[in-house]
Amino acid sequence: MKRRDVIKKGLIGAGGVAAATTISAPAIAEDRVEITMVSTWPRDFPGLGTGAQRFAERVGNMTNGRIKVNYFAAGERVGAFDAFDEVASGNAQIYHGAEYYWTGKHPAYGFFTAVPVGLTATEMNAWIRFGGGQELWDELAGEFGLKGLMCGNTGVQMGGWFREEINSIDDFKGLKMRMPGLGGTVLSKIGASPVSLPGGQIYENLISGAIDATEWVGPWNDEILKLYEAAKYYYYPGYHEPGSMLSIGMNKKWFDGLSKSDQLIIEAAASMENDVMLAEYNAKNGAALQRLISQQGVRLRKFSDDIFDAFGEAAQEVFEETRDHSALANRVVDSFDKARTEIGAWTEISDVEYINQRNRVLGG
Amino acid sequence: MKRRDVIKKGLIGAGGVAAATTISAPAIAEDRVEITMVSTWPRDFPGLGTGAQRFAERVGNMTNGRIKVNYFAAGERVGAFDAFDEVASGNAQIYHGAEYYWTGKHPAYGFFTAVPVGLTATEMNAWIRFGGGQELWDELAGEFGLKGLMCGNTGVQMGGWFREEINSIDDFKGLKMRMPGLGGTVLSKIGASPVSLPGGQIYENLISGAIDATEWVGPWNDEILKLYEAAKYYYYPGYHEPGSMLSIGMNKKWFDGLSKSDQLIIEAAASMENDVMLAEYNAKNGAALQRLISQQGVRLRKFSDDIFDAFGEAAQEVFEETRDHSALANRVVDSFDKARTEIGAWTEISDVEYINQRNRVLGG
Repeated sequence: MKRRDVIKKGLIGAGGVAAATTISAPAIAEDRVEITMVSTWPRDFPGLGTGAQRFAERVGNMTNGRIKVNYFAAGERVGAFDAFDEVASGNAQIYHGAEYYWTGKHPAYGFFTAVPVGLTATEMNAWIRFGGGQELWDELAGEFGLKGLMCGNTGVQMGGWFREEINSIDDFKGLKMRMPGLGGTVLSKIGASPVSLPGGQIYENLISGAIDATEWVGPWNDEILKLYEAAKYYYYPGYHEPGSMLSIGMNKKWFDGLSKSDQLIIEAAASMENDVMLAEYNAKNGAALQRLISQQGVRLRKFSDDIFDAFGEAAQEVFEETRDHSALANRVVDSFDKARTEIGAWTEISDVEYINQRNRVLGG
Repeated sequence: MKRRDVIKKGLIGAGGVAAATTISAPAIAEDRVEITMVSTWPRDFPGLGTGAQRFAERVGNMTNGRIKVNYFAAGERVGAFDAFDEVASGNAQIYHGAEYYWTGKHPAYGFFTAVPVGLTATEMNAWIRFGGGQELWDELAGEFGLKGLMCGNTGVQMGGWFREEINSIDDFKGLKMRMPGLGGTVLSKIGASPVSLPGGQIYENLISGAIDATEWVGPWNDEILKLYEAAKYYYYPGYHEPGSMLSIGMNKKWFDGLSKSDQLIIEAAASMENDVMLAEYNAKNGAALQRLISQQGVRLRKFSDDIFDAFGEAAQEVFEETRDHSALANRVVDSFDKARTEIGAWTEISDVEYINQRNRVLGG
């Protein structure tokens, strides 16, 4: 009788764990580590905030409390936009945020969250991990004593909330709109006035009229901010953030001093969040969009081809200007462009062709 | 002077790590664990095999060797398709493979790798993590004393390799084609004869004429198997595997007996691989496809709408037949259908609309 037959006949129970060994001694002893983590998100903000908090808790739980992460949401220790300095200075060890908040430090930071007319979440992931992105990011962050790792993604964002319909590119002229990063710079090229505000301050600025329009993330997150109370027109697809990568930024000197195994624990915890957060957005956005339309009277609108053309043209100008900043910025733009061409060509053959066919077949 | 100004002026160096504490004692001692892992992939096979091996090494490195994973590729301990029994019986603790290899155990297993005309990688991830997929998978695997976790994804696969052009659905009649899982069952509905073979046996069967056609994964992997030596027509998009989720399967009794922290280490290591492997496929497939065309004379062809319609119709029949197996199978199909409708609707508004616009703008 073959071993497999024995199993099939139930002669060996599924519960047998003969080959597993748990050796009680000698155990391995590792150092305890206690760290401070700051973030750019309000406490418990779904997705962005809860994802950052999950990361912090995960590191603690994976190490049975040996690595203790004391987490501070935006404003609890420093303001959202002070997270960078807090970690670069060594006052804290880790931040969670979006790298495009730091374009004032270096314009190339805009390429490490989301790029207008750029890469989607899965393409970003391919570029960072296997297309040279991480190496360039290390070089950039290294200039500030930091080390960044991917730690979440929102997927394709919505185009934003507007009080009036946007029928042509002229409707952007003079518009004060909340939009950070390179997307904001693109907005300024088409005559709008971009404003960068952390999530916790958008609603008050929109309702008071301090800004005319805003983007935030997508249906699931935007519903929570109640942006529909101030603006009813909700546009897609977002040209400005096709897959916003969130990240942790660590004080490099601190991270370099950790044991190799603790570095890997942090890396795995961050990578897991990178996978989990995108799944959560993709799972929850659809139902939230339906609620916004049916319960809040939100009017879903699609940006016209003309408007998208203007976005694309302005984005090219912004890329070229970014190149002028420094040799590093130039190399970042080159690498990103290469990924958009090469990885983007594969997305066309695979995801796009497949989904177009599936939707045609299922819809018909 | 504000603290931030001090930092900006360089009075506090970026290297200061005042708040970080590494407490040398008391250290936490954890038990050593040594386990056996088997896989369905040849040793060092890029993506599938190297991803499984990365997972095994990662668990070891994250724990500084405290958890030691002894990895056996297909055939080194048991054959590829014996991995399930090896772990269910407790002879090994973990396998890495594709759950659709186990449809002979239960047809619902076909839904936990890839479903014809089903979900893409990011949609699968959303379903498993936030759409009820993991709970159903736990129930299914639990019937065999196993616990599964996502651990890699190939992304959208290619439609396969054919010796002759496929101009109509009639060209599938009588065709002996390697295709596992539900995709294979769909093939049989349209008159072909599906064969399930592990990766390591495809080439010899195709070159000898034992099979007429095959699918494997995508350009990067298919190039390695040299399938172009036996068949020149390479079709896209694959209707049968739009985002093949790979996984680890663990002996449940063993896993349940681990400490919570060790369970989380394994979960994070698997989640990281889920993220990393998809990135690697997306980064490497495009260049490999170009090489196949330019260096190996491969002829890229697209399945016609008629053929895709027939695939879609046959897939619906297979789903309905799967329902008949058991109450659990019925609930799996229900949950999957719901995800395809709801998560799929969001993919349409987000990824599809965005990528269509980006490609139009960049291509024009």
